[in-house]
Amino acid sequence: MKVVKQLLGNSNFEHMPDVVNQSNRIPGAEDICKVREIIAPYIHKTPVLTSQTFNQMLGASLYFKCENFQKGGAFKFRGATHAVMTLGDEDATRGVCTHSSGNHAQALALAARMRGVKAHIVMPENAPQIKVDAVKGYGGEITFCMPTLQAREATLQKVMVKTGAVEIHPYNDYRIIAGQATSCAELVEEVKDLDMVIAPVGGGGLLSGTILSARYFAPGVKVLAAEPLQANDAWQSFQSKTFIPSQNPATIADGLRTSLGSLTLPIILDGVEDILTASEESIVYSMKLIWERMKIVVEPSGVLPLAVMFENMDLFVGKRIGLILSGGNIDLFRLPWLEDTSFSKR
Amino acid sequence: MKVVKQLLGNSNFEHMPDVVNQSNRIPGAEDICKVREIIAPYIHKTPVLTSQTFNQMLGASLYFKCENFQKGGAFKFRGATHAVMTLGDEDATRGVCTHSSGNHAQALALAARMRGVKAHIVMPENAPQIKVDAVKGYGGEITFCMPTLQAREATLQKVMVKTGAVEIHPYNDYRIIAGQATSCAELVEEVKDLDMVIAPVGGGGLLSGTILSARYFAPGVKVLAAEPLQANDAWQSFQSKTFIPSQNPATIADGLRTSLGSLTLPIILDGVEDILTASEESIVYSMKLIWERMKIVVEPSGVLPLAVMFENMDLFVGKRIGLILSGGNIDLFRLPWLEDTSFSKR
Repeated sequence: MKVVKQLLGNSNFEHMPDVVNQSNRIPGAEDICKVREIIAPYIHKTPVLTSQTFNQMLGASLYFKCENFQKGGAFKFRGATHAVMTLGDEDATRGVCTHSSGNHAQALALAARMRGVKAHIVMPENAPQIKVDAVKGYGGEITFCMPTLQAREATLQKVMVKTGAVEIHPYNDYRIIAGQATSCAELVEEVKDLDMVIAPVGGGGLLSGTILSARYFAPGVKVLAAEPLQANDAWQSFQSKTFIPSQNPATIADGLRTSLGSLTLPIILDGVEDILTASEESIVYSMKLIWERMKIVVEPSGVLPLAVMFENMDLFVGKRIGLILSGGNIDLFRLPWLEDTSFSKR
Repeated sequence: MKVVKQLLGNSNFEHMPDVVNQSNRIPGAEDICKVREIIAPYIHKTPVLTSQTFNQMLGASLYFKCENFQKGGAFKFRGATHAVMTLGDEDATRGVCTHSSGNHAQALALAARMRGVKAHIVMPENAPQIKVDAVKGYGGEITFCMPTLQAREATLQKVMVKTGAVEIHPYNDYRIIAGQATSCAELVEEVKDLDMVIAPVGGGGLLSGTILSARYFAPGVKVLAAEPLQANDAWQSFQSKTFIPSQNPATIADGLRTSLGSLTLPIILDGVEDILTASEESIVYSMKLIWERMKIVVEPSGVLPLAVMFENMDLFVGKRIGLILSGGNIDLFRLPWLEDTSFSKR
């Protein structure tokens, strides 16, 4: 982990998300095996689907790991379940908390309910009603705040002081990373001889876990990351080998707008083969095509692996590719191909 | 088959669709086993999904047989494949034909392409572009006609005279019924101790096949049919024990607008436990809920089994229910919850 040490001296780190509640080292192979056992009674072992249509379109063999079928509708439930189920009893009585307007909020609320502990979720007051309803549906206690990162962090601090709840960060936490790693671990166990696995990258929890599982359980399988061109902070970080924060990215892929974390960046720089980007148009095109041809609901962030394949077809011809479809939570009243007339002819 | 004999004297039969290209008897258990072998290399063995959400909402154990994941996007490919693959070589050289604006057209075109024979499809000139494109995409040769049943039948006759192609009727054909029967055969093989199986009913091919497979392979499992209230000709036929044709039904479930056939009606009257209906509102509600919670794309006709469960919850409490989700072909630009504002608050 040479890169890790280099980065520890990088002044940009002061702008990165704080490390909270982490175990103190990068999860090893045995750790991830143990996590699989811990979360097995709670999660879905998600299916791997194939599609002749996409195989023919891309001249490759694609294996779609369907985390959109995960409980809570996204891979996030894996990490959240691991974090919640391994809390000490005393911590558990105080409950858990996070700030999130996305899938982590739902996942944490659901995992907490399964253990019978409270989940305090700080959400921006402009969060989509559908996400507010989902968190409430899982029994989460919501505190609303102004829609700025500063307000979210300040409000979360207040909630922690008041309740004593334990913060569970969405990605910058080795317990979370180890949980997300279980998706790729299942994939490479089920599908042998993959050439590559492609995972979307936002905060980097899923990508870090994917890198670790590929390294431990399928050495030789390359891991690529997929990122919206309009939120290409991870790509910039990868190119510059330093932390570049995400700044108000304008992408439909709402799960991929966040910056990398101090724990995820080193793992990514050390282990990712490349980071590929996709245009907003490719994202929407790929999403609609997956719905039409595979008959499954995948959210914009979840189709990034397919979208980067369409934009880089030469890289993948003749290869066996695992794609992690990270989630399927979307407001069915706001489908992107209905909101942008430039897609209406596709 | 007492009912069959009674019905043969029923004068209404003259209005029923003609029997074409049928083998001469109701498929038996061995026939259906043989069909499974014949079509196995071509079809998907579709998955059976479960959902805690729906189990909790309905107080029952639901097993969703996902024919929306079938090739061509619907169960229709099973029967079409059986009919096409068992054609004599001489018949095959002349190709196959049908009139259909729906899933059967796509299924037949795809099955014909797999055998390397021509498929002539008569479609009404107002058929949705998405369905025209799908048939073309599978290599079907389309002849357009006026959008009336009379014009469709007359045009098909002309095509048959000109090409010598063999007509493959969408449901009134024992080869088709035996093919559709394989879905329920797979379901009851995979999920033991079901109390009931619910299938949608349009022309009755899927329902007839479901009845036969339940009878042969899981005796004691009751088969229920699900039909739109606004296209309740099968329900009327069941109540009156005679053939009542479908007359310009106004339902969003476009696959279920057809009348029963002379081969399907007797099997249905003899073997269906009950026919339940669902309102248009229930259909759209169930459809959106399946998409949101199960992350799968199911067309309106396909959600009828769930919709009738919501309208008759008392019947199913504590039971183990198989639901055949018949297909997933839908224009993603025309989603029903976006077209009817009365659903916008759900």
